Amino acid sequence: MRLSQFHLHTEKETPAEAELISHKLMLKAGMIRKLAAGIYTWSPLGLRVLRKVEAVVREEMDAAGAIELLMPSIQPRELWEETGRWEKFGGQLLKIRDRKDAEYAYGPTHEEVITDFARQELASYKQLPVTFYQVQAKFRDEIRPRFGVMRAREFLMKDAYSFDVDAEGMARSYDRMYAAYTRIFTRLGLRFRAVLADSGAIGGDASQEFHVLADSGEDAIAWSDTGNEGDPAGYAANVETARAAAPGPRPASAEDMRSIATPTQKTCEAVAELMGIPLARTVKSVAVMGHDGEGREQFVLVLVRGDHEANEVKLAKVAGLGDYRMATEAEILAHLGSDPGFLGPIAPAKPVRVVADVEVAAMADFVVGANRPGEHIAGVNWGRDLPEPDTVADVRSVVEGDRAGDGGTLRIMRGIEVGHIFQLGPKYAEAMGCTVLDAAGKAAVPLMGCYGIGVSRIVAAAIEQNHDQAGILWPEAMAPWTVAVCVINPKNDPAVATAAAALHDELAARGIDVVLDDRGLRPGPMFADMELIGIPHRVVVSARGLEAGSFEYRARNAAEAESLDREALLARLAG
Amino acid sequence: MRLSQFHLHTEKETPAEAELISHKLMLKAGMIRKLAAGIYTWSPLGLRVLRKVEAVVREEMDAAGAIELLMPSIQPRELWEETGRWEKFGGQLLKIRDRKDAEYAYGPTHEEVITDFARQELASYKQLPVTFYQVQAKFRDEIRPRFGVMRAREFLMKDAYSFDVDAEGMARSYDRMYAAYTRIFTRLGLRFRAVLADSGAIGGDASQEFHVLADSGEDAIAWSDTGNEGDPAGYAANVETARAAAPGPRPASAEDMRSIATPTQKTCEAVAELMGIPLARTVKSVAVMGHDGEGREQFVLVLVRGDHEANEVKLAKVAGLGDYRMATEAEILAHLGSDPGFLGPIAPAKPVRVVADVEVAAMADFVVGANRPGEHIAGVNWGRDLPEPDTVADVRSVVEGDRAGDGGTLRIMRGIEVGHIFQLGPKYAEAMGCTVLDAAGKAAVPLMGCYGIGVSRIVAAAIEQNHDQAGILWPEAMAPWTVAVCVINPKNDPAVATAAAALHDELAARGIDVVLDDRGLRPGPMFADMELIGIPHRVVVSARGLEAGSFEYRARNAAEAESLDREALLARLAG
Repeated sequence: MRLSQFHLHTEKETPAEAELISHKLMLKAGMIRKLAAGIYTWSPLGLRVLRKVEAVVREEMDAAGAIELLMPSIQPRELWEETGRWEKFGGQLLKIRDRKDAEYAYGPTHEEVITDFARQELASYKQLPVTFYQVQAKFRDEIRPRFGVMRAREFLMKDAYSFDVDAEGMARSYDRMYAAYTRIFTRLGLRFRAVLADSGAIGGDASQEFHVLADSGEDAIAWSDTGNEGDPAGYAANVETARAAAPGPRPASAEDMRSIATPTQKTCEAVAELMGIPLARTVKSVAVMGHDGEGREQFVLVLVRGDHEANEVKLAKVAGLGDYRMATEAEILAHLGSDPGFLGPIAPAKPVRVVADVEVAAMADFVVGANRPGEHIAGVNWGRDLPEPDTVADVRSVVEGDRAGDGGTLRIMRGIEVGHIFQLGPKYAEAMGCTVLDAAGKAAVPLMGCYGIGVSRIVAAAIEQNHDQAGILWPEAMAPWTVAVCVINPKNDPAVATAAAALHDELAARGIDVVLDDRGLRPGPMFADMELIGIPHRVVVSARGLEAGSFEYRARNAAEAESLDREALLARLAG
Repeated sequence: MRLSQFHLHTEKETPAEAELISHKLMLKAGMIRKLAAGIYTWSPLGLRVLRKVEAVVREEMDAAGAIELLMPSIQPRELWEETGRWEKFGGQLLKIRDRKDAEYAYGPTHEEVITDFARQELASYKQLPVTFYQVQAKFRDEIRPRFGVMRAREFLMKDAYSFDVDAEGMARSYDRMYAAYTRIFTRLGLRFRAVLADSGAIGGDASQEFHVLADSGEDAIAWSDTGNEGDPAGYAANVETARAAAPGPRPASAEDMRSIATPTQKTCEAVAELMGIPLARTVKSVAVMGHDGEGREQFVLVLVRGDHEANEVKLAKVAGLGDYRMATEAEILAHLGSDPGFLGPIAPAKPVRVVADVEVAAMADFVVGANRPGEHIAGVNWGRDLPEPDTVADVRSVVEGDRAGDGGTLRIMRGIEVGHIFQLGPKYAEAMGCTVLDAAGKAAVPLMGCYGIGVSRIVAAAIEQNHDQAGILWPEAMAPWTVAVCVINPKNDPAVATAAAALHDELAARGIDVVLDDRGLRPGPMFADMELIGIPHRVVVSARGLEAGSFEYRARNAAEAESLDREALLARLAG
């Protein structure tokens, strides 16, 4: 490719409107251009990167035996009614009426459509297992689209769906996709981690997320150091769902219950500091409204250790808290007789349900609010000073340093979710009446899995992980071109232009994805462009170099350029 | 590819709901499955064909110097307001409101979006000429989607857009796309014809359509036999817009005007038969309502020769007829004092505007309706019996046998429009304020072209052109696989299975797109499937053949199979 025949449009200034570095760099490099909120055009440069990701995804899907098809982006309401998701999916579903007033949605995902396809195409267990996939534009009407293609509304996704006769088969299909995803991110040259995840709105039994590791990632992920960053063998999970090892047995009490004057100390931190005790000796009370067994609103006091945070996803899995909300000040006053700041489980104004985190249930001699202004109570013990909790459950987020269930210590890092795989079980097939005849000739509901990769998001995630002051540092597999041949002063020096073109052609003939920067820019702007757009290898062809029989070579991530003769250069680039 | 690892789902019965043979065969072969009206899933088999077309299109676009990008499918209303097309495009535009009540359309075409991209990315004439393209799902909300993917609502399109500084440049870009389209359809192995076309709603100066020739085609195309079907060098145009050579001068009158009793003869055909004269001596009167110079509704009598038909596209280009409609019986009665059936231009009840086709204006001694029931008038002559027409224009459709302007004779055939190229001129760039600095440093409006190919429609069109009783006959470039290796009784005869697999692997290693039918079907159903899905070359591996050291080979379009040894087979398939 000759750059003079391409459309490259970089910006000198860093765009002010972008927050994330990947968004800034994609705009500055001219990879994308905003059309509307969360809707982007991929420029020729951006598309080259997107297509490289797409190609790796497709190759590994094919290698894993998945079969490509192409479903429509526009899906009829009737299908979504069959699974109840027309209402349940929420505002992210972009709903559309056609000229005949029939209702459709722009597909945000395709479980309904593939299950409809399957119930027509699959008749017998002999056709299973089968995994279908597609690569296609999706639309999710995000309330706050932002960060460029990181959280766009229209985006490119690879979605796959497996069908199996039994749970073992479903697990095998799932494992095959897990392995394919691992190969994909490995081939793309990204540091990533697969972690256990919450199934969320998609539903189903088991799921894992694949995260590209980057400090700017929106998700926190926890991993046990029985593995290590290079070899993530141990336990790893999204902090949304990660669990620490169970605490040991509750110690015997050693203190009497006593009142502590805490005139201005409204937080566990302030109380612990006043008392000169570890934060882990205090208990935080969080007041929420859930529902009781009859569906009536119920005030619930959630207790977590002072150095822990209640975890929304885990809380919502406790019976009665499926759709909990924070309690208001008025509700707190009515049930506990206290302002926020001095809440506690002891002697509430009315009887309240107490949900204690497993760590809190295993504490003795702890400190809680007194339900009276300016007062906490220390030396508190379950059973003696207050009843055993109504519910004991894991409701807190893990923190760095927690013991992991596999014997290691939990570490926390940030990740960008780029893939998510689910064992769905019978959920969709059952709702939509999709059955196959099993070996005994009886109708059986196939068990499904679904597997998504955010193809366009990977591009942004890779930049978050791989950039420096000068711009992007693409892993080779994702780079728009692997090698840039830069020509110094081609218009005034035909011999240099000819030599550069010859080098370009030779590299291209060897199967290297090379671009010739023959635009005639001065070296400064030319090199700045190549660094900004992240080409992994740069070769400079100049009159001086030609005289000396050498080329100036510099790897994008190297501090210095080096002078190489032709053979050494070719050897370097072949590696 | 082993068919046992693929998902092939053919139907035994021909689906009753389909009208067109391509629709029937695509359903029967399991290439597509309907999701909703005009919305189809492409099965794995169908997608293989679609991707082959897409690959040829992409290669030829790249070879022609067009640069690929990817625009969003969802486009904001504001852009379409800038060109006035939000209203003008009509009901085919699928309009969408997002959760914030902002309005969008699912892109049916991308002139607005590419012009918005260009006005941000193009600053100088030095960046021109440039042609961008994309391959993407489009949506057009057809009133009557039908014929499967032939007239689908969601479909796959390649759209390209060129930008040039001047008219010569625009013409060169257009010619380059014309040449690329010619190569695309040639490589795809289709019989096709490029014809002059009406620009329609897209607008602009010049345009040509590419038609796949098929008797079932919706369009009639006219071509001059100075060229011939194999070498379409001469004049060719869509019948919507095709012109015949101008008629000779009007002959002198030889007859007196006289009344003819035509009690039941309400058509030109009936009158000519009654009188024993050629149909071409009669004149047909068509009553329409247009507008006069002040914008008031105006009754207009359009005259075409009895053996001709008025042409809607041409009529709409006559001043005052831009939005004409057929007149009602009441309007006809009010203006002519006659029922339909005996209309004519002589002695109307009120003065009416007369628009005569150029052929009618050149007639003498012709026959028209008398505006009285049961009566026609013969021997009519312009100037003598009625005033010269108010307007003379080419308003009729050409017919087989017309003289062409290039000296040949016009032939008519049917075609399926699969491509359309336009010289747009300044239309979109001007409306959207897209300018570049020219060589003199002044802001200049770039001249655009736009170029569309219906990628998914090509698949159906190819089938319309290439099928027989047994199914599809794919041209090699579009076939899902080029060669099918069919194994007889593989489960009971491991040696046959092994030999077939070896042949498959050898062909694959030679770069041939081969499928091994290892499903274990009986020969009848297996061969029927391979014929239905249109594989160009079939090789049968059987125990008897192996003993004889031969393979049974049959080309899809050959009447008979032949027995070939390994060398001869490889030579045949390499060709």
